[in-house]
Amino acid sequence: MQDIKLFEDIGELFGLHPLVLEDILNTDQRPKTDDYGDYIYLVLKNFHGRENGNLLSDQVSIILGKDFILSFQERESGLFDSIKDKMSKNKGRIRKEGADYLAHAIIDNIVDNYFIVLENLEEKIEYLEDDLVKKATPSTLDTIHILKRELILLRKSLWPLREAVSALERSDSSLINKSTGIYFKDIYDHIIAIIDTVETFRDMLSGMLDIYLSTTSNRLNEVMKVLTIIATIFMPLTFIAGVYGMKMSYPI
Amino acid sequence: MQDIKLFEDIGELFGLHPLVLEDILNTDQRPKTDDYGDYIYLVLKNFHGRENGNLLSDQVSIILGKDFILSFQERESGLFDSIKDKMSKNKGRIRKEGADYLAHAIIDNIVDNYFIVLENLEEKIEYLEDDLVKKATPSTLDTIHILKRELILLRKSLWPLREAVSALERSDSSLINKSTGIYFKDIYDHIIAIIDTVETFRDMLSGMLDIYLSTTSNRLNEVMKVLTIIATIFMPLTFIAGVYGMKMSYPI
Amino acid sequence: MQDIKLFEDIGELFGLHPLVLEDILNTDQRPKTDDYGDYIYLVLKNFHGRENGNLLSDQVSIILGKDFILSFQERESGLFDSIKDKMSKNKGRIRKEGADYLAHAIIDNIVDNYFIVLENLEEKIEYLEDDLVKKATPSTLDTIHILKRELILLRKSLWPLREAVSALERSDSSLINKSTGIYFKDIYDHIIAIIDTVETFRDMLSGMLDIYLSTTSNRLNEVMKVLTIIATIFMPLTFIAGVYGMKMSYPI
Amino acid sequence: MQDIKLFEDIGELFGLHPLVLEDILNTDQRPKTDDYGDYIYLVLKNFHGRENGNLLSDQVSIILGKDFILSFQERESGLFDSIKDKMSKNKGRIRKEGADYLAHAIIDNIVDNYFIVLENLEEKIEYLEDDLVKKATPSTLDTIHILKRELILLRKSLWPLREAVSALERSDSSLINKSTGIYFKDIYDHIIAIIDTVETFRDMLSGMLDIYLSTTSNRLNEVMKVLTIIATIFMPLTFIAGVYGMKMSYPI
Amino acid sequence: MQDIKLFEDIGELFGLHPLVLEDILNTDQRPKTDDYGDYIYLVLKNFHGRENGNLLSDQVSIILGKDFILSFQERESGLFDSIKDKMSKNKGRIRKEGADYLAHAIIDNIVDNYFIVLENLEEKIEYLEDDLVKKATPSTLDTIHILKRELILLRKSLWPLREAVSALERSDSSLINKSTGIYFKDIYDHIIAIIDTVETFRDMLSGMLDIYLSTTSNRLNEVMKVLTIIATIFMPLTFIAGVYGMKMSYPI
Repeated sequence: MQDIKLFEDIGELFGLHPLVLEDILNTDQRPKTDDYGDYIYLVLKNFHGRENGNLLSDQVSIILGKDFILSFQERESGLFDSIKDKMSKNKGRIRKEGADYLAHAIIDNIVDNYFIVLENLEEKIEYLEDDLVKKATPSTLDTIHILKRELILLRKSLWPLREAVSALERSDSSLINKSTGIYFKDIYDHIIAIIDTVETFRDMLSGMLDIYLSTTSNRLNEVMKVLTIIATIFMPLTFIAGVYGMKMSYPI
Repeated sequence: MQDIKLFEDIGELFGLHPLVLEDILNTDQRPKTDDYGDYIYLVLKNFHGRENGNLLSDQVSIILGKDFILSFQERESGLFDSIKDKMSKNKGRIRKEGADYLAHAIIDNIVDNYFIVLENLEEKIEYLEDDLVKKATPSTLDTIHILKRELILLRKSLWPLREAVSALERSDSSLINKSTGIYFKDIYDHIIAIIDTVETFRDMLSGMLDIYLSTTSNRLNEVMKVLTIIATIFMPLTFIAGVYGMKMSYPI
Repeated sequence: MQDIKLFEDIGELFGLHPLVLEDILNTDQRPKTDDYGDYIYLVLKNFHGRENGNLLSDQVSIILGKDFILSFQERESGLFDSIKDKMSKNKGRIRKEGADYLAHAIIDNIVDNYFIVLENLEEKIEYLEDDLVKKATPSTLDTIHILKRELILLRKSLWPLREAVSALERSDSSLINKSTGIYFKDIYDHIIAIIDTVETFRDMLSGMLDIYLSTTSNRLNEVMKVLTIIATIFMPLTFIAGVYGMKMSYPI
Repeated sequence: MQDIKLFEDIGELFGLHPLVLEDILNTDQRPKTDDYGDYIYLVLKNFHGRENGNLLSDQVSIILGKDFILSFQERESGLFDSIKDKMSKNKGRIRKEGADYLAHAIIDNIVDNYFIVLENLEEKIEYLEDDLVKKATPSTLDTIHILKRELILLRKSLWPLREAVSALERSDSSLINKSTGIYFKDIYDHIIAIIDTVETFRDMLSGMLDIYLSTTSNRLNEVMKVLTIIATIFMPLTFIAGVYGMKMSYPI
Repeated sequence: MQDIKLFEDIGELFGLHPLVLEDILNTDQRPKTDDYGDYIYLVLKNFHGRENGNLLSDQVSIILGKDFILSFQERESGLFDSIKDKMSKNKGRIRKEGADYLAHAIIDNIVDNYFIVLENLEEKIEYLEDDLVKKATPSTLDTIHILKRELILLRKSLWPLREAVSALERSDSSLINKSTGIYFKDIYDHIIAIIDTVETFRDMLSGMLDIYLSTTSNRLNEVMKVLTIIATIFMPLTFIAGVYGMKMSYPI
């Protein structure tokens, strides 16, 4: 996506609206579906792995036309590998169906990547829950904070993704075949399931933060009880020792 | 559900869509109703008892056709026992009505299982409330945490269940008889009542967590007051004893 | 409601649907309105007084037919006294209007009982607020907790009550006269006002819990300051006394 | 509004529905608009000043007929002064337009009074914010609590007011002129702006409570650090002094 | 906007409604779009930079007529510079399109200013997050508080801005060209993205406040542990020293 000239030529060749070209280049887009009549413009976020513990996401733009698909990626990633593989080996329905089915396959891959992120998060949350019960340390708090942030980021791209796919499913564009509609419905169901899980994780993390805070104040209580018991025993004793010593020195 | 070959044969025999077969096998589905014209595909979560204190749930798939019902379960459970019993003894309306009434009977059983889970939870919450007033311990906190998690899990399957049954009730499919509609409405009312109860339990648990936290800080206050009273009495006394002893030794 | 035989006979006589009979007997219903064509089935919760400090509620079922009203109560209560009184004394419009107006009169009485509960709660909340400012004790916390629970219970029956009455108001059933519609609208307005008040009470109790918690930590601060001041004064003094006493004994 | 006889005569003269008369006398109404065909009944809350620091509110009922306006107030207040003034001086459009414009003028005055209340609250919140940074005392907490309560009260009357005015604006009653509609739209916009501000104030107060609580625990931390430092210095020293004194007395 | 006479003349010349003139002068308006048939009245908030750390905002009123645009600003700002520049240099489409496109260009500039504010906030939040992990001080708390307030202010103008632009986009007014509609849709998408980001920032700040509070109580725990350890060691030792010294003085 470095070669602006080539990019503009493509835009002209396929008759893309200047706003579409702008949106493709601006990699900070909110996922959405725009129907321009001759083609449908889709922009999505693809989460692919991590780097230094942070989630990596790329912007993927898809233009679905009558007989073609254009797709633009922020960075090179393995997103299309499985699709190319299926096409070259002529597996599945991907070469029998139209451009809309191909678009579906790409979006399906992107949505599947969310599941991978979620599984990874689930593992971390379970690990955290064990930690919480056995030995809560300040680092537990950091982990809760980091996981919460990741969920906030995921949510930010999931809700518009849901809208974008719903727009495709309910679309009456001639570019989308009736029989493909059910596949978009299937993706839509997956996204709803992902959103449910993200919300569930958020609830669980909030619960865990409450538990962490309660554990902290329980621990403070314990510490203070020890201090109070020691003070209650030794302050009077020290006083008595002082008085006794004082009295004892009288006869001297 | 182990025998994939048999499963695929059934799919072919009844003309099921590949997406349906995929959904039946993938036991992580969100409850939903999909109308495929010739048949309606339903997927639900059945909660049946506990194991090691954790709620057990199974995925149940129902395919409602013109004159048949297919159902697939993740694991063997007693879900159909009462229905088989009624059918063999020719009790109730179950053999007089069509396939849609049979589907209703299965869903009704699944929803009744939620009531059993709720009664169990209610008992625990009442027990917890007694505990909270009499003797709140850190294990009270654990119980609140565990109950909260179970409610989160129940909610996650209840809201889509509500949608799925609502879709059946409002369906204009020829597969569902007008006179059966009222039975789906009845199940729908039960689900709403269950959701209300779950939300009420959540509110109650939140309130109990607040009380627990307040009790903890009240207790800290008590401990600190004891410490302060002892320090206020014995620190000056010890000092006086020290000074007196010091003075008393002058004449020596 | 003990005599099941009589009850079933009534059901048959008036041609009631088996689901209605089931709902009447199951006293755990969510308030709702079901239109069965020939009659409308209504189920409500009536709050009448307290026992051992707990709110008492009864399930009231009303069947509104062409020229008749059937009503079933969980327990004997004075709910119909004022209506019987008006009817026997031929006061008001109650004997001039149809069965729908009578149904309205019963529902109106039930809704009025909510106002009585609210007034009682308002008194307690005001009393609590005075307490909070003057002398907050752990029992203040208990009271907040109990009031919160009662509001949760009220809410649980108010929202479906609102729906049930709204369904009556917007009903196009021939059983409800146009001129009676405005009376149901009036009840609906009352329910909305009750819900508003309940929500306001919830907000106020939440605010009071925050204040209670802040007061608790303020008090802890005060206690700790006293402790610190005493320690700051007497620890150095005791040390000096110790050293001085030590030195003073040199010449001996 | 004391003279019930006169009141009932008015009701009969203008053909008012018994429910309207009841609502006018019951000064605990939720703001609303009821269209009775021949006339529109409006009930609102007018906030006019304070007494002993509490907001004063009155119920104002307006009946908008073909060529007349009836209005009933709970208490005498200056609400109509500016309108009477404009009418007597023949200023503005108030004498050229119909009864609906007059109704608009009254509602406009009532809504303007909310702005006055908000300005007063804004001042207090700004004053509070200064306090929070410079010197937070327990009285800061009381002020937050009182302001929160006032916002809860305002909200309780604002949301239904919004509905009531929206009903007027969207009304297709012949009593409301097309050209007056835009004035009701204007009032509606003002109410939305007031609600926005109230919500903003609520958010700000919540934020301030959080800050207050954090400041309190920061302060506790400071106090405890002083205590710990003193104890860390003087406890060992006192012990050493004790031991030294003990040893020093050996040679004696 | 000081010259009232000129202002009223303009109003008369362009046939503006008195309510529009009032709204332009009252610089406390909520963003909105009002369609008056012959012209559309728009009022927006323009955020341009900071003064003493506070966000500066101006009210901008736009009147979009058949062949003209009127715009009124609360204060002089560089809002129109880029547009004037484009027009004078005949760059872009701005001189080829109609008044609606010009209106779009102004709104686009205003929305772009929100992005600048957000970038500035993002920087501060990232800086804050670093601080939180490394060294949380009471000033961290102040910063969280200030950022929260700014987000509250932004939100207050963003939601109505969204409505206002959505009204333009969906408008069937003849003043807005079909081909311009897509540009308003583009602005609308930007506003939604801004709102998403603001909500995300709010969630992040809430999370950071929780972490701050937990860190504070962790720190208190640490301090109390030190105190308790010291007391546990030296209180018994001091007592023993006292007793020993007391005993040692016997033989003397």
